[in-house]
Amino acid sequence: MTGALTRALTPLPSGAVIGILGGGQLGRLLALAAGQLGFDVHIYCPEENCPAARVSAHATVAAYDDKAALAAFAAQCDIVTYEFENVPAQTVAEIERAGAEVRPNARALESSQDRLAEKTFLNGIGIPTVAFAALETGADLEAALAGFGGKGLLKTRRDGYDGKGQIRLSADGHAMPDAMSLIDARPCLLEAFAPFEREISVIVARGANLAGEIETLVFDPSENLHEDGILKRALVPANVPSAIADQARAAGTKLAEALDYIGVLAIEFFVMPDGALLANEFAPRVHNSGHWTPDACLTGQFEQHIRAIAGWPLGPVTRICDAEMDNLLGEEITQIPSAFPADTKFVPYGKTEPRPGRKMAHITRRLPPKNR
Amino acid sequence: MTGALTRALTPLPSGAVIGILGGGQLGRLLALAAGQLGFDVHIYCPEENCPAARVSAHATVAAYDDKAALAAFAAQCDIVTYEFENVPAQTVAEIERAGAEVRPNARALESSQDRLAEKTFLNGIGIPTVAFAALETGADLEAALAGFGGKGLLKTRRDGYDGKGQIRLSADGHAMPDAMSLIDARPCLLEAFAPFEREISVIVARGANLAGEIETLVFDPSENLHEDGILKRALVPANVPSAIADQARAAGTKLAEALDYIGVLAIEFFVMPDGALLANEFAPRVHNSGHWTPDACLTGQFEQHIRAIAGWPLGPVTRICDAEMDNLLGEEITQIPSAFPADTKFVPYGKTEPRPGRKMAHITRRLPPKNR
Repeated sequence: MTGALTRALTPLPSGAVIGILGGGQLGRLLALAAGQLGFDVHIYCPEENCPAARVSAHATVAAYDDKAALAAFAAQCDIVTYEFENVPAQTVAEIERAGAEVRPNARALESSQDRLAEKTFLNGIGIPTVAFAALETGADLEAALAGFGGKGLLKTRRDGYDGKGQIRLSADGHAMPDAMSLIDARPCLLEAFAPFEREISVIVARGANLAGEIETLVFDPSENLHEDGILKRALVPANVPSAIADQARAAGTKLAEALDYIGVLAIEFFVMPDGALLANEFAPRVHNSGHWTPDACLTGQFEQHIRAIAGWPLGPVTRICDAEMDNLLGEEITQIPSAFPADTKFVPYGKTEPRPGRKMAHITRRLPPKNR
Repeated sequence: MTGALTRALTPLPSGAVIGILGGGQLGRLLALAAGQLGFDVHIYCPEENCPAARVSAHATVAAYDDKAALAAFAAQCDIVTYEFENVPAQTVAEIERAGAEVRPNARALESSQDRLAEKTFLNGIGIPTVAFAALETGADLEAALAGFGGKGLLKTRRDGYDGKGQIRLSADGHAMPDAMSLIDARPCLLEAFAPFEREISVIVARGANLAGEIETLVFDPSENLHEDGILKRALVPANVPSAIADQARAAGTKLAEALDYIGVLAIEFFVMPDGALLANEFAPRVHNSGHWTPDACLTGQFEQHIRAIAGWPLGPVTRICDAEMDNLLGEEITQIPSAFPADTKFVPYGKTEPRPGRKMAHITRRLPPKNR
């Protein structure tokens, strides 16, 4: 199923050009990490003057289906990566046709872009998820709801993030008209409700070790608090027994290996009242729930991703302190003090327009360890 | 002597533009630190495609005496700083005339650009240096040499760095013809030989504290090893008694306060066999001997300089581990392994041409503490 696995990576020399598809805060923090390692960065993004381009050597402003722009971009890059998982498959194909390698590979994108493929893939490698049903018609929805006790979470199979494209269905049938319209418009999936105790995630890195062999390293799990479908806080360590933490690490490792993954990925889980761990979704990229890593670990997720895709040996993921990471959304960035206590790292993304719910910055507090 | 002291700084909002004069590795590492704090950076440098411009939002390629380019640059910057101390006074004056503030201030530049002014200033605030004599003529040199036991170090008053513009004079008179030519060509200084045991330096940061008041913080001293006048290694902690370390910190603090300094500066010392501490020189900027700080302290010198000039509260300079920093010069960068052990940070500067003696990268090893 996984094809020929990567056996070795040739390290890119410093001064090489790393291409990044996408120009938001994840691209920006990746670009800064790449610059710190001596690489030049080329950002490909449809928007002018995006946060990532403003810290990068080169930028292409073009659509993701602009074949000529993609070919020119590919010709200038020694390796290409991406900051978001909804990169069209065709975009990756064009870049590869023009001779540049894309890391992580297309398989990781395919498996994560479609919630049905994602859950099927996870279950297929022995990682449990919530129960789910693919829906083509309203009748499918009614049948699936009946099986899930009359309630569930309706999601589009593609293109949802931060809670977008989701409808919560309860026994009162109140949201059914919206649900029927959504199913008519787009392929959907019904997920059974997961009355979880908490949400956790792990950041997984797969790349070369010092001997040049491929290894997988997993950061400590974080506990994640969402508001309106958007991550608001990540706490480390997560308040879970070590057996749960180990299970999350093992699932992350299994996923990275099954995908023959090179780079950093994130996998989110629900911790159920009975101690079961159910995977929710994974993202083939650096992740908001790993924003605490640069300030609390010997290597942060952004540096780690660049090291991995550049064929450099991974750094240690050892955690040196506890941490709390808070997202600042929209106008929150204007309400914070300009002065922070000494144990706090404030990381604004250089976005000028604080639209409601827009991720503008994050703050990481380093805390003395409570438990290990 | 020091004029009205700075009492308060208004914090720049993230998204503001920080201008940097100079585009080498110090500018690059400053720009990366600024990007991490959400600022846009504008590099002013006479060379195309310099290392700093490749990680910055904006670049002006123009000479330091190009008044129109300086005025346009100043108009786009919320604050201006520099990565080297030989910025012409006229350049700073043009920028200030165009309405942008330059931090650190012109006084710091004036005092550090001329070795005679520098030593006179240091002695004037009670910081001892080696004995020195200003020279106008060959006769001055002979008189000064007689006073210094027939030997000494002849230096141009201006524009020397990394051992350039220096002639070592010993009792055999062997180098006297070169010395006489140098004195004929440029104003010089004779320094008495300092048969020091070791060289140390401190990195000093002066800026706002959390209450908005001005404070001075000093990083732990490093012990510095030079080869051919170029820094090769910095070791932390320096192998000196704590009384010497305290004396170095106190001198650094005194200097920053006397200059009404905002930003990071470095001051180098000779430790003499009798335990005396003699200042050698200071640099009104981030410094090669502080390259270990980002990897071994809670705040690194680059972030600290940006925080200071942006009016943000300084971060803690607490050292979390011991460290060894090595410069990689010229072809050394091609001779290193592409894989480093996990406790090592490799920081290449993105320079393409490894000329002999050119600083290409540095490596910082984090070490478990030996002594505190």
